[in-house]
Amino acid sequence: MSTSSGQSAVTVLGLGPMGRALAGAFLEAGLRTTVWNRTPGRDRELVARGATAARSAAEAAAASELVVVCVVDYDAVDAVLRQERVADALEGRTVVNLSADTPARARATARWADRHGVRYLDGAIMTPTTTIGTPDAVFLHSGPEELYRRHRPVLDALGGTHTHLGEEIGRAAAYDIALLDVFWTAMAGYAHALAVARAEGITARELAPFARGIGAILPPLFEETARDADEGTWSGEGNPLTSAVSSMAHIVQVSESHGIDAGVMRAAEGLARRAIGLGHGGDGFIRIAEVLGRR
Amino acid sequence: MSTSSGQSAVTVLGLGPMGRALAGAFLEAGLRTTVWNRTPGRDRELVARGATAARSAAEAAAASELVVVCVVDYDAVDAVLRQERVADALEGRTVVNLSADTPARARATARWADRHGVRYLDGAIMTPTTTIGTPDAVFLHSGPEELYRRHRPVLDALGGTHTHLGEEIGRAAAYDIALLDVFWTAMAGYAHALAVARAEGITARELAPFARGIGAILPPLFEETARDADEGTWSGEGNPLTSAVSSMAHIVQVSESHGIDAGVMRAAEGLARRAIGLGHGGDGFIRIAEVLGRR
Ligand SMILES: NC(=O)c1ccc[n+]([C@@H]2O[C@H](COP(=O)([O-])OP(=O)(O)OC[C@H]3O[C@@H](n4cnc5c(N)ncnc54)[C@H](OP(=O)(O)O)[C@@H]3O)[C@@H](O)[C@H]2O)c1
Ligand SMILES: NC(=O)c1ccc[n+]([C@@H]2O[C@H](COP(=O)([O-])OP(=O)(O)OC[C@H]3O[C@@H](n4cnc5c(N)ncnc54)[C@H](OP(=O)(O)O)[C@@H]3O)[C@@H](O)[C@H]2O)c1
Repeated sequence: MSTSSGQSAVTVLGLGPMGRALAGAFLEAGLRTTVWNRTPGRDRELVARGATAARSAAEAAAASELVVVCVVDYDAVDAVLRQERVADALEGRTVVNLSADTPARARATARWADRHGVRYLDGAIMTPTTTIGTPDAVFLHSGPEELYRRHRPVLDALGGTHTHLGEEIGRAAAYDIALLDVFWTAMAGYAHALAVARAEGITARELAPFARGIGAILPPLFEETARDADEGTWSGEGNPLTSAVSSMAHIVQVSESHGIDAGVMRAAEGLARRAIGLGHGGDGFIRIAEVLGRR
Repeated sequence: MSTSSGQSAVTVLGLGPMGRALAGAFLEAGLRTTVWNRTPGRDRELVARGATAARSAAEAAAASELVVVCVVDYDAVDAVLRQERVADALEGRTVVNLSADTPARARATARWADRHGVRYLDGAIMTPTTTIGTPDAVFLHSGPEELYRRHRPVLDALGGTHTHLGEEIGRAAAYDIALLDVFWTAMAGYAHALAVARAEGITARELAPFARGIGAILPPLFEETARDADEGTWSGEGNPLTSAVSSMAHIVQVSESHGIDAGVMRAAEGLARRAIGLGHGGDGFIRIAEVLGRR
């Protein structure tokens, strides 16, 4: 549905930091944008910039052919969408769900949508709010390709790169889970490193340039070791698990000597020791992926 | 001590992947290089390239004014250096210890060196073997500044950037611990992500380009959040802990639904939930560093 003025229309349900960033990018691109959030007041700045404030989720759903949902998780999605008046308003329209959750929940939502005559695409946002509307944003999508193609022009208003991962609706969530696993584990490591550094009299700002250097090593290493993982080669030539585990033990020791919980590293060290115990001490660290996946 | 030919001389004790890379870079730079390793045979390629093979650690120590030690940890360093004949040979010479261990062990080694009239610098290598001799290598050093300055020309043969962090001998090890904390935790996250992805039918090579993208987000985020950590601002405006913890729970759930151990993420999620329980749910993730460091 285009509006009488010929502009495309889009609705954003959920105005947390990410929902606001999405709605802002749609407005920036000149789209007629309707917004709604459970808790009132979050739409103020967007309305000042030209967004239409809907009084209910159902009214917001009725306002546009394309309805983007971005709330904390799929319990929240269900709380917003699974109401009779909202479902009725959505019939024949397309929902693009950019909330994060599990592949199973994405599949359940797709089944619900199907039962209610709602077209459904599932997606994931892999970059912070500040990237939205810029070339740095990264979006993953899954669901019917034809539907994705049809709405791609509106989604492009969000900037960045959009990748359609396939028709299986759970695929974007599966990538999201794996990628957030990397992200939040790394952030947990950084938070822990800052605590240990501080206990050693090193400020975060002193550590940061070097942490940045460590961060820069990771991306090429991810690509390199991915080949190992797929091919089962696990080369430990340059850095065997036995060497890694020695460093991990030192980290636990220094952390705990300062009274700082080392549970994350203890768990990681445990995985490495288990892989060594299974005979893989000469292999590279990514052998752990294979050991973790064994049944 | 320079050799009769006027070249600088350097000894490398320990010929694991890293020791071999260091000795290779010294040879490449035209230094007279003497090598030794506990297990024989590791020196073959280096000798073919012009290195002198010493028959004992004591003989290797006697061969050069500057002795670089690079073995798995300081238990191994002690096994190599703390022998009467080696200590005697090292008297008046300089040891640069590039093995990884804790700040406490670095301090203990410095005390041992002092008692035996051995000059001592402690260091850490923050990049893989493949970077040695290239501009990408990163070395951290601590100990007497004058000693560092004197040997800097030889160390420069290793390529990369060298930073003297201060005279306190444990400082390089403290940075090393914190930075390896970031590195190995992130790698544990990646290994786990590959296992989960595989269980979801996603190959490592399919995931890798996106993982690379996640990796690229980290370095600027490390710098940004370092400011928060030092200033105690913990801004959660763009991404509060309550949102992060929801993703972490999904990762645990998907992982365990495939029978994949999620101990690392469970520990990380626990830290986040604890920070939320202490009233910091609206703060950014790096608040966890402060909570971890509380006494
Ligand atoms: N922020 C980022 O950097 C980022 C990056 C990538 C992906 N994401 C994903 O984007 C999604 C939204 O994130 P966010 O950053 O905007 O913040 P968030 O804290 O994850 O979500 C907040 C939004 O969820 C809504 N909500 C929560 N429970 C609800 C319920 N029961 N019923 C209705 N609405 C409910 C909130 O409404 P109220 O205002 O009424 O509480 C608010 O609109 C999440 O899935 C997140 O993982 C975020
Ligand atoms: N590889 C990397 O990418 C990398 C990067 C940065 C820093 N580092 C650090 O560099 C150091 C050396 O690492 P590496 O990669 O060469 O491999 P490694 O597996 O950590 O160390 C192997 C070396 O340690 C020696 N060693 C172990 N126990 C010994 C003992 N009791 N007595 C004498 N020697 C002993 C081994 O001798 P044998 O051959 O006789 O067993 C071999 O020379 C470590 O501290 C590591 O953390 C490595």
